[in-house]
Amino acid sequence: MKIAILGYGTVGKGLVEMIDSNKGKRNIEIASILVRDKNKYKSSKYEHLITEDIEEVFNKEFDILVELIGGLNPAYKYIKRALESKINVVTANKDMLAEYGDKLVKIAKENNVSLRFEASVGGGIPVLKPLIESLEGNLIESMYAILNGTTNYILSKMYDENLSYEEVLKEAQELGFAEANPESDVQGYDAARKLSILSTLAYDRRVYWKDFYLEGISNIDRKDIYYAKKLGCKIKLVGQSKLNDKKVSGFVRPVLVDNNSLLSRIDNEYNIVVFNVDSVGEVSFVGKGAGKEPTGSAAYADVIDIFDKRVCNIDSFTKEKIEVEKIINHNCEALLRFKSPKKDKIIELINDCVYEHEVIDSNEEELAVMVSVDSEHEINNVLCFINNKGYCKECTRLIIII
Amino acid sequence: MKIAILGYGTVGKGLVEMIDSNKGKRNIEIASILVRDKNKYKSSKYEHLITEDIEEVFNKEFDILVELIGGLNPAYKYIKRALESKINVVTANKDMLAEYGDKLVKIAKENNVSLRFEASVGGGIPVLKPLIESLEGNLIESMYAILNGTTNYILSKMYDENLSYEEVLKEAQELGFAEANPESDVQGYDAARKLSILSTLAYDRRVYWKDFYLEGISNIDRKDIYYAKKLGCKIKLVGQSKLNDKKVSGFVRPVLVDNNSLLSRIDNEYNIVVFNVDSVGEVSFVGKGAGKEPTGSAAYADVIDIFDKRVCNIDSFTKEKIEVEKIINHNCEALLRFKSPKKDKIIELINDCVYEHEVIDSNEEELAVMVSVDSEHEINNVLCFINNKGYCKECTRLIIII
Repeated sequence: MKIAILGYGTVGKGLVEMIDSNKGKRNIEIASILVRDKNKYKSSKYEHLITEDIEEVFNKEFDILVELIGGLNPAYKYIKRALESKINVVTANKDMLAEYGDKLVKIAKENNVSLRFEASVGGGIPVLKPLIESLEGNLIESMYAILNGTTNYILSKMYDENLSYEEVLKEAQELGFAEANPESDVQGYDAARKLSILSTLAYDRRVYWKDFYLEGISNIDRKDIYYAKKLGCKIKLVGQSKLNDKKVSGFVRPVLVDNNSLLSRIDNEYNIVVFNVDSVGEVSFVGKGAGKEPTGSAAYADVIDIFDKRVCNIDSFTKEKIEVEKIINHNCEALLRFKSPKKDKIIELINDCVYEHEVIDSNEEELAVMVSVDSEHEINNVLCFINNKGYCKECTRLIIII
Repeated sequence: MKIAILGYGTVGKGLVEMIDSNKGKRNIEIASILVRDKNKYKSSKYEHLITEDIEEVFNKEFDILVELIGGLNPAYKYIKRALESKINVVTANKDMLAEYGDKLVKIAKENNVSLRFEASVGGGIPVLKPLIESLEGNLIESMYAILNGTTNYILSKMYDENLSYEEVLKEAQELGFAEANPESDVQGYDAARKLSILSTLAYDRRVYWKDFYLEGISNIDRKDIYYAKKLGCKIKLVGQSKLNDKKVSGFVRPVLVDNNSLLSRIDNEYNIVVFNVDSVGEVSFVGKGAGKEPTGSAAYADVIDIFDKRVCNIDSFTKEKIEVEKIINHNCEALLRFKSPKKDKIIELINDCVYEHEVIDSNEEELAVMVSVDSEHEINNVLCFINNKGYCKECTRLIIII
């Protein structure tokens, strides 16, 4: 079996190493490798296969295109071309799946070839295959997950070493754990794209990532970490989605997670995906969410699935788009922080409007209150009152997940 | 596609319910159901398919035999007959896989049919498929797991409610969580069989369950739990195996697990399997390890895999048997408990023989010491000395897993 690889960065190298180390078991031949700058690979073992010209790639014969260049363009064009030429495609490109998954799945189906993307979610954790194949007979009711290694690393470091967001981000960038432009990670876009892929497959309706409530971690400060510790919690960027009758609700946001929960044990570069399944109950998958070898391993598994002609149903991407509710409309607890001199007034108002509350801290700088509400609307209402009365313009909130 | 089901107990009913609830999606017809006593199913929807006669089962046409009667005989005979008649087999029977997996896989291969057994390990957790298919390119270096729900329930209850082993076992038996004869669970045989299936597939050599070091939980007393709490640990029945060059080492035994570990979060009926994978790092799978729906879901997934003609390589069962070391031959810590009046003498001897130790408790009744050693041989030597000198005849030990 012959494959062409687009992109020879971290993941590409991980994949090629795995192909090499399994030579005796699986006969996978590399037809060509597309790169941006050939000169960087002068001493590579595969120099003779490396090209900067996509036409050279397509001029050779191969069975699988492995797309590892990322981004929407030109990746989309190349994948489309491969599928239309009846060539199977393996990709790690969550941005594209989240955006154009429906179109690509349709094209793959029309051309009777495979499109596989295990590496797009959860890095080295086998999660899409178990979801699609092993849990097929079940109804997935909801899921929650930590899907972004960069932000999990930042939050873990802030928690463990009492550092500020800015300090840790800088360090992470220097170490290569965070990108120079970290927006996609720290604003939760990356996690939301992965959550949308999981949700689409789980609920068998097309779920769009932009429809989730999205909040990043860049406003998390040391005081948040301080409160988290005081409450026996950690702060994690969690993606959650839930099927409610004919709607999905979902978010990606920093939340407080109880120290007794599985989520709180997932630190640094680790990811977790937890499905709530009607008959099976909670099923969780944990592992490294990114990196050369883990992601390379996931792409390799996809190649092997095609090698072994294992089919896999991803039609959910072509299903009708489902409406997504952004607000939490069930019981929840949240930590509210107000910077205001009018603390008594605020507490009075909270007392009037909210069923249960507890003052966590009240000092010169700020007031921190834990509230129990029937839905997040209640919090919005209280904050609206407080704002209208001029007691406080700014409030941060962190909901708790047990 | 037609299936015949042997056994209509908990798992059989779970499977049939899942087939029913997926009727619109998958056309799986039940050809017959073998039971021991027909009279018990008079009002069943499937009464007309129920029989006590295995010949009646084999006289009908069907594509898959789903074996859910358990035990070695007559299950082995039926499965063998099906495979030799070129009928695919799905089974949840870990006892048989552990014992006769090699023979059955060979027969399946010779007859070019599938033998599948996802339900035999980890109940509703998809774990064999991810191991075999998703992690194919990797070298699995070691694994540790909680694989038995009954013992995990007993240990959780002892820990949470400060009850004795006997009290909890009795309650578990009354509730149906433990069998009238609980030997296979509480002595660790069940967990060892599952660990041998996982190890065989992971290390690509035949690993036999009886070769593991085996120790059950029936000697765990309240004082062990007391010490566990004092040390910031829980006690779990853990199965661990490790590939060392040309040998495997492995055990199923109660161990202390740190409260910060993932293992310590796995309580009651939940199971966990953690693989240490050369390129991917630690990958963990968590979920309910038993029960009607979870195990039914796993058997259903196997049926669907055969339905979709997805092949799966389980040749490892036919590979040469690998030697298993029972002793821990690397650094470890252990809690030793002595019931003896000669406490000072024992401490003196430990001090002479062991690199590092700490007295955890020394009271009228007993002495509890934590020791750090280079291998378990060292502990055995110390205990041998203590025994020979007549200081103490009996000692219990619990190793720690971080």
